Amino acid sequence: MSILVVGSVALDSVETPFGKRERVLGGSATYFATSASFFTDVNLVAVVGEDFPQEHVDFLRSRDIDLTGLSRVPGETFHWKGYYGYDLNEAQTLETHLNVFQHFKPRIPPQYADAEYLILANIDPELQLEVLKQVKRPKLVACDTMNFWISSKPEALKEVISRVDIFIINESEARQLSGEVNLVRAARAILAMGVKNLVVKRGEYGVLMFNGSSLFAAPAYPLEEVFDPTGAGDTFAGGFMGYLANIGDTSEEAIRQAIIFGSVMASFNVEAFSLDRLRTLTYPDIEARYRDFKRMTHFEEVGGL
Amino acid sequence: MSILVVGSVALDSVETPFGKRERVLGGSATYFATSASFFTDVNLVAVVGEDFPQEHVDFLRSRDIDLTGLSRVPGETFHWKGYYGYDLNEAQTLETHLNVFQHFKPRIPPQYADAEYLILANIDPELQLEVLKQVKRPKLVACDTMNFWISSKPEALKEVISRVDIFIINESEARQLSGEVNLVRAARAILAMGVKNLVVKRGEYGVLMFNGSSLFAAPAYPLEEVFDPTGAGDTFAGGFMGYLANIGDTSEEAIRQAIIFGSVMASFNVEAFSLDRLRTLTYPDIEARYRDFKRMTHFEEVGGL
Repeated sequence: MSILVVGSVALDSVETPFGKRERVLGGSATYFATSASFFTDVNLVAVVGEDFPQEHVDFLRSRDIDLTGLSRVPGETFHWKGYYGYDLNEAQTLETHLNVFQHFKPRIPPQYADAEYLILANIDPELQLEVLKQVKRPKLVACDTMNFWISSKPEALKEVISRVDIFIINESEARQLSGEVNLVRAARAILAMGVKNLVVKRGEYGVLMFNGSSLFAAPAYPLEEVFDPTGAGDTFAGGFMGYLANIGDTSEEAIRQAIIFGSVMASFNVEAFSLDRLRTLTYPDIEARYRDFKRMTHFEEVGGL
Repeated sequence: MSILVVGSVALDSVETPFGKRERVLGGSATYFATSASFFTDVNLVAVVGEDFPQEHVDFLRSRDIDLTGLSRVPGETFHWKGYYGYDLNEAQTLETHLNVFQHFKPRIPPQYADAEYLILANIDPELQLEVLKQVKRPKLVACDTMNFWISSKPEALKEVISRVDIFIINESEARQLSGEVNLVRAARAILAMGVKNLVVKRGEYGVLMFNGSSLFAAPAYPLEEVFDPTGAGDTFAGGFMGYLANIGDTSEEAIRQAIIFGSVMASFNVEAFSLDRLRTLTYPDIEARYRDFKRMTHFEEVGGL
């Protein structure tokens, strides 16, 4: 089944200890869609300006991403400039130019309205609510957010959370949103807002998934070279939702596998700047790393001593 | 098979956001031995002063820990005073009074000299080398250390590392010792010092085990209440070595299981001050939590999409 993603398409300028790139392809919807495209068909809703290079449009098309919902409007494309130190877990934002994204009002094309899988990537929660109004009840809705919306629009965000199936958030954001230092308590508080599954991203420490009855812990793939963490969370979400849409199953077992596929995709993405690693990635690479995750986490059950 | 542990027995004064305890039972060898005693026989070599309460001796005896190697000498017992903030990952040392521990020269009783399992808990690496001279070649030797020895006695520490089978260290200490920020590179540099297995403790993020050919990632058990992290690392090491000594197997599969048992023991220990949780713990509790770890980390293999 296909996925509908609503989010940002951007041009990023990024500096890490390993180099620097100016105005390369970025944005939450871009990372998500490209990652998900390894698993299923993707329909993208976003906005770009007149300066958005045709080569990026061509790249997204080469991934079979449907761009009916990508509007090009007068003005410049959303531009983010960030810096990572040796602690690659946290970006420092140097500049944010919303540009055409500032007046973005997502319009879901009629042919996307019966989407069964929907991801509300990190945008204003009021816009996320607008998107929810424009789709019939999909089978599975996930959403992401960021610290800015937690502090500026907590009520709209809580409304979104109560209406989605899977909420994907960073560890520090989970603490911020819940007001709880302890992550188990933070998770319980967020689940009480009405979401069924909470996926907490912990960067190089992996992912925890909480629901009412159980807990799943996945490590991150330990990498020797992390070139650029930009988009890791969106790439994770793309692999996660892409796999779920592909198999058409939302059982806990499927969600656990999806978390591993998401982690696999994120681990590849950080190996190069922008989405460059995904440009050469193949599905056999993905399966091989999934098997690495299985080997890396395996231990035997024990009987009595 | 029995384990020989050489380390500290102390009285700790600890404050955490959840309370405060004065001069309670502590010390690396104490935590290690008590934890390991759930799995196998333990022989302890350490020193205490005249003030060391008989009730603590009685407690260690009640765990069937052999105290032939525990000497009581004139003076006061090693006393550590520490504080933890809401970020319970790192202790702040307020006071360290080495007292009788300052002149501690480990003497291994003759009946311990053919110990097959040996743990060199966190003490001066020169003393760790002295211990290694006093034992015949054991089947398995593990050692722990701390940031203080990495900066003050790096050469002696590297000599120890080259002579043990398993080196257990914190994530930040692995970075400090290797001079590498990236943990995979740090691990490779430490393995190149001549140790076969490197166990990196990451606090609430679990454990990574590196050897020449593979990698194992174990999560920590997510707890709602962490009362007192003191001794978590030593309790981990006790469960880890205790299980290995119990089954008499040093295969990678056994080491992976041992890491889970160590993680289980650490997760219980932090639920109360000092070793109090271990006083009431039963082996069925341990097995039940081991099964929780199995459920928490399980995901299915996948075939081709």
